[in-house]
Amino acid sequence: MKRIENFKSIIDKYEIIFFDAFGVLKTYQGLVPGIQKTFEYLEAQGKEYYIVTNDASRSPVQLAESYHKAGLANITPDRIVSSGMLTKEYLGLKVEDGIVAFLGTPESSHYIEGAGLHTLPVSAINSDNIDKVNAMVFLDDEGFNWCDDLNKTVNILRKRTIPVIVANTDKAYPVSLADVGIAIGGIAAMIESIIGRQFIRFGKPDSQMFMFAYDLIREYRPINKTQIVMVGDTLQTDILGGNKFGFDTVLVLSGNTLPKDVENRITSTGIVPTYICDSAVVELDELGF
Amino acid sequence: MKRIENFKSIIDKYEIIFFDAFGVLKTYQGLVPGIQKTFEYLEAQGKEYYIVTNDASRSPVQLAESYHKAGLANITPDRIVSSGMLTKEYLGLKVEDGIVAFLGTPESSHYIEGAGLHTLPVSAINSDNIDKVNAMVFLDDEGFNWCDDLNKTVNILRKRTIPVIVANTDKAYPVSLADVGIAIGGIAAMIESIIGRQFIRFGKPDSQMFMFAYDLIREYRPINKTQIVMVGDTLQTDILGGNKFGFDTVLVLSGNTLPKDVENRITSTGIVPTYICDSAVVELDELGF
Amino acid sequence: MKRIENFKSIIDKYEIIFFDAFGVLKTYQGLVPGIQKTFEYLEAQGKEYYIVTNDASRSPVQLAESYHKAGLANITPDRIVSSGMLTKEYLGLKVEDGIVAFLGTPESSHYIEGAGLHTLPVSAINSDNIDKVNAMVFLDDEGFNWCDDLNKTVNILRKRTIPVIVANTDKAYPVSLADVGIAIGGIAAMIESIIGRQFIRFGKPDSQMFMFAYDLIREYRPINKTQIVMVGDTLQTDILGGNKFGFDTVLVLSGNTLPKDVENRITSTGIVPTYICDSAVVELDELGF
Amino acid sequence: MKRIENFKSIIDKYEIIFFDAFGVLKTYQGLVPGIQKTFEYLEAQGKEYYIVTNDASRSPVQLAESYHKAGLANITPDRIVSSGMLTKEYLGLKVEDGIVAFLGTPESSHYIEGAGLHTLPVSAINSDNIDKVNAMVFLDDEGFNWCDDLNKTVNILRKRTIPVIVANTDKAYPVSLADVGIAIGGIAAMIESIIGRQFIRFGKPDSQMFMFAYDLIREYRPINKTQIVMVGDTLQTDILGGNKFGFDTVLVLSGNTLPKDVENRITSTGIVPTYICDSAVVELDELGF
Repeated sequence: MKRIENFKSIIDKYEIIFFDAFGVLKTYQGLVPGIQKTFEYLEAQGKEYYIVTNDASRSPVQLAESYHKAGLANITPDRIVSSGMLTKEYLGLKVEDGIVAFLGTPESSHYIEGAGLHTLPVSAINSDNIDKVNAMVFLDDEGFNWCDDLNKTVNILRKRTIPVIVANTDKAYPVSLADVGIAIGGIAAMIESIIGRQFIRFGKPDSQMFMFAYDLIREYRPINKTQIVMVGDTLQTDILGGNKFGFDTVLVLSGNTLPKDVENRITSTGIVPTYICDSAVVELDELGF
Repeated sequence: MKRIENFKSIIDKYEIIFFDAFGVLKTYQGLVPGIQKTFEYLEAQGKEYYIVTNDASRSPVQLAESYHKAGLANITPDRIVSSGMLTKEYLGLKVEDGIVAFLGTPESSHYIEGAGLHTLPVSAINSDNIDKVNAMVFLDDEGFNWCDDLNKTVNILRKRTIPVIVANTDKAYPVSLADVGIAIGGIAAMIESIIGRQFIRFGKPDSQMFMFAYDLIREYRPINKTQIVMVGDTLQTDILGGNKFGFDTVLVLSGNTLPKDVENRITSTGIVPTYICDSAVVELDELGF
Repeated sequence: MKRIENFKSIIDKYEIIFFDAFGVLKTYQGLVPGIQKTFEYLEAQGKEYYIVTNDASRSPVQLAESYHKAGLANITPDRIVSSGMLTKEYLGLKVEDGIVAFLGTPESSHYIEGAGLHTLPVSAINSDNIDKVNAMVFLDDEGFNWCDDLNKTVNILRKRTIPVIVANTDKAYPVSLADVGIAIGGIAAMIESIIGRQFIRFGKPDSQMFMFAYDLIREYRPINKTQIVMVGDTLQTDILGGNKFGFDTVLVLSGNTLPKDVENRITSTGIVPTYICDSAVVELDELGF
Repeated sequence: MKRIENFKSIIDKYEIIFFDAFGVLKTYQGLVPGIQKTFEYLEAQGKEYYIVTNDASRSPVQLAESYHKAGLANITPDRIVSSGMLTKEYLGLKVEDGIVAFLGTPESSHYIEGAGLHTLPVSAINSDNIDKVNAMVFLDDEGFNWCDDLNKTVNILRKRTIPVIVANTDKAYPVSLADVGIAIGGIAAMIESIIGRQFIRFGKPDSQMFMFAYDLIREYRPINKTQIVMVGDTLQTDILGGNKFGFDTVLVLSGNTLPKDVENRITSTGIVPTYICDSAVVELDELGF
């Protein structure tokens, strides 16, 4: 574990950088100040990067648009790997036909739609169509009535022995400096415990997320794990998952892990990043790089 | 473990009978057919009984009224011991002043009110009064907006280091032959996991529930544990709790545990009742008892 | 929560003091220096006390002897309430005959023996007597071969649907300044998870422990919960359990909870003692009390 | 989910077959009777296969030898993918130097040795070399003194903030028709709970196991997930893991899952295999295939 002063030296050491989104590139207030310089430097150096996120609430196209609006103009949808993409792949491989019931916004469901599958919100499931429900997906904590639709979800799953996919494993997420929101991963864990089943969870720290991104790269170029570094703000997801997959890892202190807690948290969890850095912002000197 | 044909022989063996409510005396359809005869027989034999229930949604007075309406005219409020009563005792002993925030219906909150304490629904907590919140109680799954108030609860508990009481430990409860509802115990477990704290849980199988009822009796008469039997439909609450406290136990098959599953469930959980009986209904012969 | 300088003022406020043993009266090095003065003061003031301990490795008589040897001459066996005593009560009420198999030293088993019951170490169970095994008790981490007897325990429990009692719920205990030992509570949790059953656990924070002591007192004098204070060094057992039962509680910093961690631990667990005090040692002024 | 009479039709449908070892190819009694025919048929049809096993107690070379001795002469070490191999890869990528402490037999440790790393049994760790311990690996339940070395492991991990790898996630394994043994995965879970950390677990149902095998294949030929089928006897490891990775799956009833329980288990876990088949034995007709 090494303290790094300038994130620039991380970029210089690796071929490809994986970034977590929330707490690394943006916070509840918008972009992390100065993060544009990091992407300028990546571009100037011809380094590749991917944004590897547990956010299944929107498609990569929509996520990229939100970065453009915020001022990161260069991020294209093909740079974004989300747990929603693993859900889409799973449904394509394992569910042949029928209805995929979901909890989430309409936007979150559009891009998991595929050939032969009909996505319907849980609220639209009834006694006429329940027998055609062949999968259930937890996508987002918004877009449905919690009381009505969570009770309905429990009862659909008691009647149908079908795969259940949780596309975002986080239990909570920050909504302001002081407050958090309950995430769909926390809600899914409650339902899992009530009906006594084990759901399929995509999203960091699960390896399949890293493998999906790693495979995307290997389709167009040779690479090995030592040439990639994972940058994240959360020990239990980004760093644990990156370490386990075999990547080097950087813990940044711009999100979930505060500078005053970092030592304690590493000791108590036993999760050790390769590097610690204040943020993923590149500090450029005046004469260029 | 002995199979008993007629619940009458159970009553004959013990001084005091403890009944679980849901699945033993009533179901989602109303009273268990014939259960009136059991209470007639108890009365005729001069046997005492208590209803020991995880239901904190209403006061003993309101619960007794609901039995009267259903046709069990003799059940008086002093025969009912609920997890809500332990909550009330806890608040009286351990919380001196300030606000008790709660999740549940207004009815559920009325009877936990006490000297010096002001009960307020979570929806009424704001930046002006949050500093006076000295306890949080989970009472019932109804009476609040799940999305708004559960998110609010998480954030209140992140700001206030206060005791949290879960007055009903059940995760789900039956609402029809086919369907269940998510109970406040399941919701509380989700919040517990999100904020990483351990809440105070009253309600079976916790011993404090049995002790509360046992103490009520000892105030007016001498008794020992071998003279009391606990009758319930659920291995994990009624039977486990009763056994642990030292009571004999009767599993009835009119609720949660179906006749076809009983053997399997006992073997897999390792929770063994003293007796098994189809129901708590006393079958009386034609010539009287 | 109030910081208290001198433990004397705690004694002055209550009728009866409950002490945890390890971390409060003694550590791995022997008695807490100066703790004799506390017992002198208790005696001088005519205050009652009980030692409420999760230690089921020895009988109250043996535990009292160990205090005498260490220099606390006044502690009599009737002042000691251990989780082993609840185990003995349970077996007396709920197991009529046959063999009680146990993990622990011979000493730990002697005093759970009772009328009609034969206690045998797990190592002595074989195909001839397994059908008579009617209960299993986890008493102590010493006195058996871990590999042989833990494997044997798993297989006995797969063959016999019997109650399993864990007489010490602690997962680990300190053996030196730097090192801990795995406690029988940690071992029991492993077996529980392997065979998928829920064992009966006595010992703090479980209420039944506090009730047992409370009942002992009420047999010879009237008392109510506000007149008793529980003194302990561990938030998750002594303080959580004492609070839940309705007692006032004192966290002392001579054991498990270090002065530098106390604030953090209270905030992160949400378990709040009534008082915090450096130790349970009474500081007497020169002129007597 | 389709009931399949003859495993032959499974082989005919896929390019590559992944087999679990225990409960599919062998049991505690030796090879599953007739399983040789399956490998003859695979050979005759030119189909590829891999044995994907949570067994980290021996190297692929030693595992292959044990199949030869038992009568499966054609299985070569390169056909075997074990959780031990992922451990070796992890150590190669993430631990640069120092000592790797392990629990297991000497044989289990030999093949995780690598450049710059020194493997030492936990029993050989002492105050002189503890500062050089840079990783801990749980390999096998044999080869060490449970009481001494598990206590020692807890204390090493309290002193060293290092990655801990569990190379076999199973909690128990069958040792005879009636009995099971506690597996290193169960022991590791106990230590995890005692020290409050999250270990790195390789082995099914974790995706990284399937990815490792999938990657081996892709190095020498193009393949996609629909051309591979995973055959296993355990819903929670083989089938859950295979499904999640996107493979079709076959549950065989020659091991952990008994024919009488299969329907119940699928309903209660919600884990649904693509096919169910009595065993992985190919029934050949008299005229050849």
